[in-house]
Amino acid sequence: MAKAIVVGGVAGGATAASQLRRLNPDIEIVIYERYDDISYGSCGMPYYIGGDIENRDSLMNMTPGKFMEKNIFVKTGHEVRSVNSEENTVTVFNKNSGKEFTDTYDWLILSPGGSPKQLEAVKDAEQAFSLHRLADLDHIMSYIEKNNVKESVLVGSGYIGLEVTENLTERGIHVTVLQHDERIYKNIEADMNGVLYEAMTEHGVTLKLNTEIDYVDGKQAVLSNGETINAELIITGVGIQPNTGFLNGSGVALHNGQIPINKNCQTNISNIYALGDATITHYQHMPAMLMQAALAWPAHRLAHIIANQISGDKTITHEGFLGTNIVKFFDYHIATLGLSEKEAADVPHFVVDQKQKNKSGYMKDAAPIHVRVYVSVETGIILRAAVVGTAGVDKRIDVLSAHTRLGGTVYDLINIEVGYAPPFSSPKDVINMVGYKAIEKAQKL
Amino acid sequence: MAKAIVVGGVAGGATAASQLRRLNPDIEIVIYERYDDISYGSCGMPYYIGGDIENRDSLMNMTPGKFMEKNIFVKTGHEVRSVNSEENTVTVFNKNSGKEFTDTYDWLILSPGGSPKQLEAVKDAEQAFSLHRLADLDHIMSYIEKNNVKESVLVGSGYIGLEVTENLTERGIHVTVLQHDERIYKNIEADMNGVLYEAMTEHGVTLKLNTEIDYVDGKQAVLSNGETINAELIITGVGIQPNTGFLNGSGVALHNGQIPINKNCQTNISNIYALGDATITHYQHMPAMLMQAALAWPAHRLAHIIANQISGDKTITHEGFLGTNIVKFFDYHIATLGLSEKEAADVPHFVVDQKQKNKSGYMKDAAPIHVRVYVSVETGIILRAAVVGTAGVDKRIDVLSAHTRLGGTVYDLINIEVGYAPPFSSPKDVINMVGYKAIEKAQKL
Repeated sequence: MAKAIVVGGVAGGATAASQLRRLNPDIEIVIYERYDDISYGSCGMPYYIGGDIENRDSLMNMTPGKFMEKNIFVKTGHEVRSVNSEENTVTVFNKNSGKEFTDTYDWLILSPGGSPKQLEAVKDAEQAFSLHRLADLDHIMSYIEKNNVKESVLVGSGYIGLEVTENLTERGIHVTVLQHDERIYKNIEADMNGVLYEAMTEHGVTLKLNTEIDYVDGKQAVLSNGETINAELIITGVGIQPNTGFLNGSGVALHNGQIPINKNCQTNISNIYALGDATITHYQHMPAMLMQAALAWPAHRLAHIIANQISGDKTITHEGFLGTNIVKFFDYHIATLGLSEKEAADVPHFVVDQKQKNKSGYMKDAAPIHVRVYVSVETGIILRAAVVGTAGVDKRIDVLSAHTRLGGTVYDLINIEVGYAPPFSSPKDVINMVGYKAIEKAQKL
Repeated sequence: MAKAIVVGGVAGGATAASQLRRLNPDIEIVIYERYDDISYGSCGMPYYIGGDIENRDSLMNMTPGKFMEKNIFVKTGHEVRSVNSEENTVTVFNKNSGKEFTDTYDWLILSPGGSPKQLEAVKDAEQAFSLHRLADLDHIMSYIEKNNVKESVLVGSGYIGLEVTENLTERGIHVTVLQHDERIYKNIEADMNGVLYEAMTEHGVTLKLNTEIDYVDGKQAVLSNGETINAELIITGVGIQPNTGFLNGSGVALHNGQIPINKNCQTNISNIYALGDATITHYQHMPAMLMQAALAWPAHRLAHIIANQISGDKTITHEGFLGTNIVKFFDYHIATLGLSEKEAADVPHFVVDQKQKNKSGYMKDAAPIHVRVYVSVETGIILRAAVVGTAGVDKRIDVLSAHTRLGGTVYDLINIEVGYAPPFSSPKDVINMVGYKAIEKAQKL
């Protein structure tokens, strides 16, 4: 019987296995996951801390038992340690038995994900955690409860850092955010991130810029600025590195440690596919430019494509991603899509800024929304968009995403026919106004 | 000096005049408006009743004085009574002086709007109003205050009927809604409108189906079912008829009393343009089918096109409309786009229904959202979409609108890259799921 092996059983791998089974009842499917938990919604974990998610088990989409019902074999505690792409085999270490064995595949699906980068200064502190796996969440929650934590330190300000800061605060735990340099959440423009600072002051979060932990002393952290602060709980969110070490010598090509994929979601080896946080692909709207889509939406999309490819429908292919993303931080919503600011700087462009209310301005709860787009001078395509506000941000980034994906230019935004009623938008919505302004700006170029 | 005359000074006409002046400083522009108020946001009027709009004057975008500063002459109380398209003249009745005069144009912009249909049974009742003009709003508000109104009757259940019902209720006035047949708000599917009934019961609104007012007796209304109810205030919202009687004999072609326009927004006469509620055009995604876009977004869009056309930029043209629309009724949001149900029935199609949460299902405030699309069997284009829920409805209809407008098929919805984080969506958002389901359904056709 033909056999597919999936390396990694979190969102990407588990979804790929499920979809493959749905399309193809006849092949053998095995998932090797090196840790204990599979198929959980890692994006939800911060919200369990704060209480927006009431049931921890609702984070789990599937269990090994449910997979078994679908005739998918899930082996947790099994680490794939090497791949031999000439022999079509993997070497697997069974953590429970301590034994290594070899398994054979017809198709190999790589979804190894990433691991949080470790901070040397906190590596021996029992109160230091990252929030990456479901087990991390369980450890953090039980640590908080056992120690009745009231003071925490959050190192880093990426989207996980922001989400965890909000949710610890919601739980009644004071958070001190440490940022090693002078700018937080670099995914958004420096002159648009003021709302983050505002939200921190509103909600009693303490922020220390240009500050790191030098060392931990019991329940206290000694900082690089000389201060000593309470640190009953330390959570680090300082980035992810792809788990691709096991591919050394496999013949699978890597690019800066990440796995490049083609439009069929194949690696350089035709029966080895990859998806998830360890992959690298290209921008949908700028196909010559590499992009890393370490996000849940792309992982789910690639899972579907891989399942179809393996099942023989080669017409379903991967078109690249825009990298559309959004984060909530207290009352504020921050979203971007497309190139990074740095990447956009290398493409001749002009910028259009529009600040407007998210609904008809005469409504008393109308709130400001700020949209910025970076427009290719050559094509009029939106290279990058950034949206900040307290409501309606997700709508505007999704509309920009749908429009840009189909090749719509910034000028054509004037024609997007929004559903208008005073509680929702304006007869010239902020998205339309970006288009009108872009037309004026382009005429003056 | 070349001269443009605008007939009608509410949203469409006023916007066209402003945009024309912006593009063209050198022509003469005159607006004739038969009533007293110009350039107001009529869509906001219901929300002033309920208090979501605190300042009545915020509904007014512009005053005659502000237009004068832009060198636009506004003549209120001036009714255009006839058009002579061979002589390029209009006959205007000055209500203040009681005199009629003739004016000459190079371009004529028709934005006459519509008038609410009158109900014979209430026409002599002093407490009966429609809500169409700003003066209507003022009369209603002063009537409510003077008479300390606590009981009202709303005849009809179009979007204005719903909005006024909500806002009277918010003001503490009990509303009895009378619907002449057995189905309310026919813009949404009969099997998706249950939320409207639910909202009425939740908020103490009384609904009487298959019921009309037979006659009004003092502060009471005698109904067709024999009941007599308190009717301190009666508001009718039973449809609009286009104000195009003045075009009889003008040479301007009408279609069922509405003014057809071409891609340049011209009527059949090349120097006569039209926009607003009295016009009829075609669907953007089904160009062979007529559609009436009596909505604010299309009026603003056409104003921009007409201004450019008259100013000499013939490249900015009208592509038709999708008719994207949304209404709020208490906690519920109801949106549609595209053909009516009846129109869709004439095009070979299949239906895809998807009910899902508006955000990650494990979030405790995740709420159901229901999306239905009618898909052309031939092209895969979404002929019609309907979305109902309590949050995120506006986002989904706008994304469907942007996607459909650029020719995206239902199958391609799987590729719309939404901004995902648990508070906003799912890694397979409801929009994506509609695409996945459509693919499966099409394979079985």
